[in-house]
Amino acid sequence: MDVDSRAARWEQRTEIPLFVASLVFMAAYATRVLAVGLAHWRDLCLWVMLALWAVFAADYLVRWRLGGQRFLRFVSTHFLHTVVVVLPLLRPLRIVPLYDVIQRRQGEPRLSLYARVISYASLSTLLLGFAGALAVFQQERGAPGATMTTFGDAVWWAASTLSTVGYGDITPVTRLGRTIAIGMMACGIGLLGAVTGSFSSWLMQTFTRGSDRKGPPGP
Amino acid sequence: MDVDSRAARWEQRTEIPLFVASLVFMAAYATRVLAVGLAHWRDLCLWVMLALWAVFAADYLVRWRLGGQRFLRFVSTHFLHTVVVVLPLLRPLRIVPLYDVIQRRQGEPRLSLYARVISYASLSTLLLGFAGALAVFQQERGAPGATMTTFGDAVWWAASTLSTVGYGDITPVTRLGRTIAIGMMACGIGLLGAVTGSFSSWLMQTFTRGSDRKGPPGP
Amino acid sequence: MDVDSRAARWEQRTEIPLFVASLVFMAAYATRVLAVGLAHWRDLCLWVMLALWAVFAADYLVRWRLGGQRFLRFVSTHFLHTVVVVLPLLRPLRIVPLYDVIQRRQGEPRLSLYARVISYASLSTLLLGFAGALAVFQQERGAPGATMTTFGDAVWWAASTLSTVGYGDITPVTRLGRTIAIGMMACGIGLLGAVTGSFSSWLMQTFTRGSDRKGPPGP
Amino acid sequence: MDVDSRAARWEQRTEIPLFVASLVFMAAYATRVLAVGLAHWRDLCLWVMLALWAVFAADYLVRWRLGGQRFLRFVSTHFLHTVVVVLPLLRPLRIVPLYDVIQRRQGEPRLSLYARVISYASLSTLLLGFAGALAVFQQERGAPGATMTTFGDAVWWAASTLSTVGYGDITPVTRLGRTIAIGMMACGIGLLGAVTGSFSSWLMQTFTRGSDRKGPPGP
Repeated sequence: MDVDSRAARWEQRTEIPLFVASLVFMAAYATRVLAVGLAHWRDLCLWVMLALWAVFAADYLVRWRLGGQRFLRFVSTHFLHTVVVVLPLLRPLRIVPLYDVIQRRQGEPRLSLYARVISYASLSTLLLGFAGALAVFQQERGAPGATMTTFGDAVWWAASTLSTVGYGDITPVTRLGRTIAIGMMACGIGLLGAVTGSFSSWLMQTFTRGSDRKGPPGP
Repeated sequence: MDVDSRAARWEQRTEIPLFVASLVFMAAYATRVLAVGLAHWRDLCLWVMLALWAVFAADYLVRWRLGGQRFLRFVSTHFLHTVVVVLPLLRPLRIVPLYDVIQRRQGEPRLSLYARVISYASLSTLLLGFAGALAVFQQERGAPGATMTTFGDAVWWAASTLSTVGYGDITPVTRLGRTIAIGMMACGIGLLGAVTGSFSSWLMQTFTRGSDRKGPPGP
Repeated sequence: MDVDSRAARWEQRTEIPLFVASLVFMAAYATRVLAVGLAHWRDLCLWVMLALWAVFAADYLVRWRLGGQRFLRFVSTHFLHTVVVVLPLLRPLRIVPLYDVIQRRQGEPRLSLYARVISYASLSTLLLGFAGALAVFQQERGAPGATMTTFGDAVWWAASTLSTVGYGDITPVTRLGRTIAIGMMACGIGLLGAVTGSFSSWLMQTFTRGSDRKGPPGP
Repeated sequence: MDVDSRAARWEQRTEIPLFVASLVFMAAYATRVLAVGLAHWRDLCLWVMLALWAVFAADYLVRWRLGGQRFLRFVSTHFLHTVVVVLPLLRPLRIVPLYDVIQRRQGEPRLSLYARVISYASLSTLLLGFAGALAVFQQERGAPGATMTTFGDAVWWAASTLSTVGYGDITPVTRLGRTIAIGMMACGIGLLGAVTGSFSSWLMQTFTRGSDRKGPPGP
């Protein structure tokens, strides 16, 4: 790693607060999309989102300064981080740095490898699915010929998409809605595949261990 | 494991009877949902279900006592068990403890690792799919605009969902039906993925072994 | 293996002819289903199918005799074989014995492990998908409300089902058609999963080998 | 490998230019399909495509000559190459030779194994999906009863097919369109499975490494 210890310490201290900030951002966005009647709340949420966006940008700039790279090089080596600053709804994708920071604090991992992959990747998928449902719903609401009329429809659509079931009873029809949906498929299906794969490996490991323990056949 | 030998012996003795009890529970639930005309039978089934629920709760309390933990801690460390007591239809998810108990009795596992994973996970998926089809059918029956009108439709929907094919010719439309469906996807697709993965590994192992055996080329 | 050498020699000699016979059976069945106008041909096909059925049954009985087990025990230990005798369209499922016999003849396997799994499992999936499309089409043709009106529709449905895409533009509506479809999903998705998994492993192996060969950098 | 060093040097020099030529071919095909009003441009594109086809055929003949095999044997041992000469839109399938050539030039691979598989297989899937969307759109446009009316629809259909989501809101209805779609499924789903599998393995590896590094717990 060509990141010096000051950059590492900054990451160590800010990753968790920024993750919490991204949850607040998502909640503000959700309120803005869903609380149609409450104009005051929606304005408040807009301000909260802008403030958090400024915080994310400031963090990005501080990291660039601490890293000591030229800007374009920093952008290309921190590709995911750049995407996440532009679109804070995608911040749940930063599970690996978040995992890293949490593990460093805890010292010893308390869960088995599979349980850790399952829990982090599930959380990430859940948040991404929620953000995707919100973003697609915002595009689809009121579009002519839309089948997605309530937010419940959007959640149902997101679940059927991420699991690759894809009923097709509810689908986005607007150009932007479909673009967001393709991005959600690209990120989410990979993450959910990691969950399924880990679960499958864990089950197989459990069944192997079970047959080894048979040596001393119980008390 | 911080579970002493009395708790282990209790599990050893009760796991299989409780699994059978959950099958009876499922049969009673099926009768209650499907036997529309027979009011007497449906009442009987309700009583059977309540009695079995009491048995499941009693088993849960006994395990908590034998484990010697505080209640909230027991609930959090036995998360799956708690879910299964609240929703006995999900008891097929306890395949790992069931497998454990059966293997302890048999001494030596009689099937290869892959065959064991395939058989236990398939059984679990089948039972879950049946329970999910019943539960969703109960919600959807009579709902306005429902496409699921017979139990055959519900089974067909469950098969197309668990295999992630997802035709979408029949889909739940009620809020509760969709919630149950999302839960069924979350559990079932992982389990079925384990079946598919094991089958694939078994096939690859068989083909490897086949090419090794070529040394002495038959009699 | 508790099968003596006479049973093994019988398998060695009959497996490939029986596989060819099952292809003829499938062709006769296809003619019977698709050649609607040609009554004479359809009668001929029926006789061919019955004759081949007799051959399959005779082979089954000879194997039972050579194996020296009691009948019920033979049925339970040769479960797949029993299924395949009752439903000869499923004979492509016997890829493992077929592979075994072909490898024994060739001596040295000529393809890599992945290529062998991919080719055998693809062939098996193709034949199963074709048989499933035929069988479902026979049920659906003329059913009220059927979306599957031509055999081309049936092939398109089978492809979208086995790949788990599941568009749902064409789906079976009869009870028997759906039952066959569920069986086709259960067998075919596992086999296709083996193909996909092997391809993925092969790609990863190729990319690993590529980076090792870098030692001497070309000529 | 029974390919002598002159054939290897030819491949080393031509693989990248030919890949670029296939991108130009795809762009010309896209212009021909999409630029409906511009007759002059479409004619130009046709000539470009024919010229590139001649180049691909010439390369194929040179390789055959350099390899020193008889023609039919060359065709059967270079099956993928033959397919790619007949259908230049499928040239993105040649990722393994392309990868090989690029790695030979670079000396040391700069990305980890998983990152290489993910990037090559993603690129390949993207190009294949784009080519498939173009080819299916050309068949479907103007077909009676077609649901795919704009190229945006075709891209949306391709994304939902390759991810195996398969909504079914837009599906090909012509015979040739469906045949191309089945080919696209066969190639694309395997490639995308490799992407998902590599991502999943990478995530698991990252989480393992994370727990090993815990020995010295940070500065």
